[in-house]
Amino acid sequence: MPPGPRGGDAIDAAIDDSGAIGFVSVCRGDDPTSRYLTGLDAEFDVVYVRLPGETHLRVPSTVDIPDGDAASIRVDDRPAGQAAAAVLAAQAETGTVLTPQTVPHDAALHLESAGYELSSTTAVQDARATKDAAELDAIEGVQRAAKRAISAAAVILADAHVEDEALVWSDAPLSTERIRRQVNATLAVEGVDSAGATTVTTGTRGGRESAVELVPGEPIVVSVSPRGPTGYRGALARTFVVDADGGWERRAHVACAAARDVALVEADPGADAGFVGSEIRAETAAFGFSMADEVTRDVGGGLGLSAREDPPLDGDAELATGNVLRVRSAITHATHGRVELTDVLVVEDDGPRYLTDAPTTLDPSRWTE
Amino acid sequence: MPPGPRGGDAIDAAIDDSGAIGFVSVCRGDDPTSRYLTGLDAEFDVVYVRLPGETHLRVPSTVDIPDGDAASIRVDDRPAGQAAAAVLAAQAETGTVLTPQTVPHDAALHLESAGYELSSTTAVQDARATKDAAELDAIEGVQRAAKRAISAAAVILADAHVEDEALVWSDAPLSTERIRRQVNATLAVEGVDSAGATTVTTGTRGGRESAVELVPGEPIVVSVSPRGPTGYRGALARTFVVDADGGWERRAHVACAAARDVALVEADPGADAGFVGSEIRAETAAFGFSMADEVTRDVGGGLGLSAREDPPLDGDAELATGNVLRVRSAITHATHGRVELTDVLVVEDDGPRYLTDAPTTLDPSRWTE
Repeated sequence: MPPGPRGGDAIDAAIDDSGAIGFVSVCRGDDPTSRYLTGLDAEFDVVYVRLPGETHLRVPSTVDIPDGDAASIRVDDRPAGQAAAAVLAAQAETGTVLTPQTVPHDAALHLESAGYELSSTTAVQDARATKDAAELDAIEGVQRAAKRAISAAAVILADAHVEDEALVWSDAPLSTERIRRQVNATLAVEGVDSAGATTVTTGTRGGRESAVELVPGEPIVVSVSPRGPTGYRGALARTFVVDADGGWERRAHVACAAARDVALVEADPGADAGFVGSEIRAETAAFGFSMADEVTRDVGGGLGLSAREDPPLDGDAELATGNVLRVRSAITHATHGRVELTDVLVVEDDGPRYLTDAPTTLDPSRWTE
Repeated sequence: MPPGPRGGDAIDAAIDDSGAIGFVSVCRGDDPTSRYLTGLDAEFDVVYVRLPGETHLRVPSTVDIPDGDAASIRVDDRPAGQAAAAVLAAQAETGTVLTPQTVPHDAALHLESAGYELSSTTAVQDARATKDAAELDAIEGVQRAAKRAISAAAVILADAHVEDEALVWSDAPLSTERIRRQVNATLAVEGVDSAGATTVTTGTRGGRESAVELVPGEPIVVSVSPRGPTGYRGALARTFVVDADGGWERRAHVACAAARDVALVEADPGADAGFVGSEIRAETAAFGFSMADEVTRDVGGGLGLSAREDPPLDGDAELATGNVLRVRSAITHATHGRVELTDVLVVEDDGPRYLTDAPTTLDPSRWTE
């Protein structure tokens, strides 16, 4: 799949609607907006200027110019706003210029002092919320890798044995960190990047970077949100318990699975995103969990080049065909720990569909590929 | 190593110098500046407000509040600038507020309409350029992992054999992508993140995401810039040739190695960063390569939470004890391909020191741990 560029048509429409002369975005090259607009994955500041029907990029002179249409790439070491103004001047000496709301303040001031009036647009943000077939393919590819990574964790946990009330695997105590590293190695072999987003937590202890030794009976949450080769993200989380005996984690797991199913019923084109989010929370709570203290507030939202983008599941957006959503149900209890299920679904004309068929089993030995 | 927060003292000094009432930064949570200031690694927008001697953070209400000093964390769904103004109001109703130059334009406008005058400061950027002992430890740890990852590539290449003019490893043709995945799996097992920055290129073909089958005699560049668990980056690149026979790659490799040594002579405290950069380029060119067409422009610069930060090696900064620099020498030729060596050095009181002892051999079978 070619990684881009995208968004030019949406920007042209916004320029046309507003009577502006052009559009300017100033981003670090690895910013998702920049990647969307340019197709480049670069660790340098990119100035993107769109005049109707044509794109101009500005890169710093120290950078070896990336492959692409060199005619549209300008090397310029002036401050971003000045470099953008120089491109705009070829189109018009004055007029309105559209920018994202988050354009850096210094660039905005340079554009204003060059004689342009700024007006903010959500055109790029809006365009990013609806994925085309190639973007969807990219996200599905990342979800397949995510499933294999969670699978690696399930295999390790199924293979672990209990010694002195602790889990042992491959002749050594099993910790959250040992699993996290194996999960990330699996992602790497699958050709995707962990994006620093893999977490393995257990019970009420542990976190992103600490190594907590695992014990039987406590829920272990394995969560990944990898980034594929073209920048698109995935998201998948599963909860496992070795030798479950308590009722709490089984009940919490059933609640999370039911909440996950709710999204499949509710996330139709035209549905209110905030309503879908509140239905997910309500279904989780319906199994006897406290909405205030136990059910997670973060039930997800749009996912694409960023792990969190439009539409959020707590806002007032209307879902549309092509929206891709991270759907998360989670319950946290002060002593029992945490249970979570996260998946990615796409909103299609005839309803939502989850992008993986990853099992939801709590028992790692029942995980099937 | 605790991941932070850092920079409060530097900001307090800037507030004091300028007679400002406080400092505001608005960033995505995974932005290096935000990570530096807050110590948090979060995928949500963070509003950071510093009043003299005290830090206040604002996070969106959908986020499960991270661990830390909860007293200083405010949950607020207003636009970032408004949320920041509400914190500032407790200190003073009007006055000057310092911000980074890149504060988002919408946040700046909110602060201005609340009655504050904005003044930009480079205090955080400047503070980040000088690393403390804990930051240096973190970067050294990442460099150890980087060395192991490059080592994995060397072992594969030393183990490969030639069949029909192509390299074969583990019973299948060896490609840039197969090496890249093994390198990234090694980084994962070492507990660091590839940060999407690993590239394996060969000859004049190949690139970040394409799988190019490898052949004997062509230079293969393996480059990593991983991110450690506390966010700090490393950088290491080596060039290998299997069955080298040509003179070009040997001569280019000697030139890059000599340029790498130049940094060890020149990068003293007080040296002009731009001069060090031009000396690296001049030494590379001295072996008969064209400064205009063959010697890379990007000879590196500061490295820390970002792979590219202050001081750049093409600017007019003065090097100081505690600067950590990515040093890169590279030569590209239209038909022979590319040779590169990249390392990280720290500027210490008594001169510069490379953070790894990774071999520079062109022959993978001569790589030693």
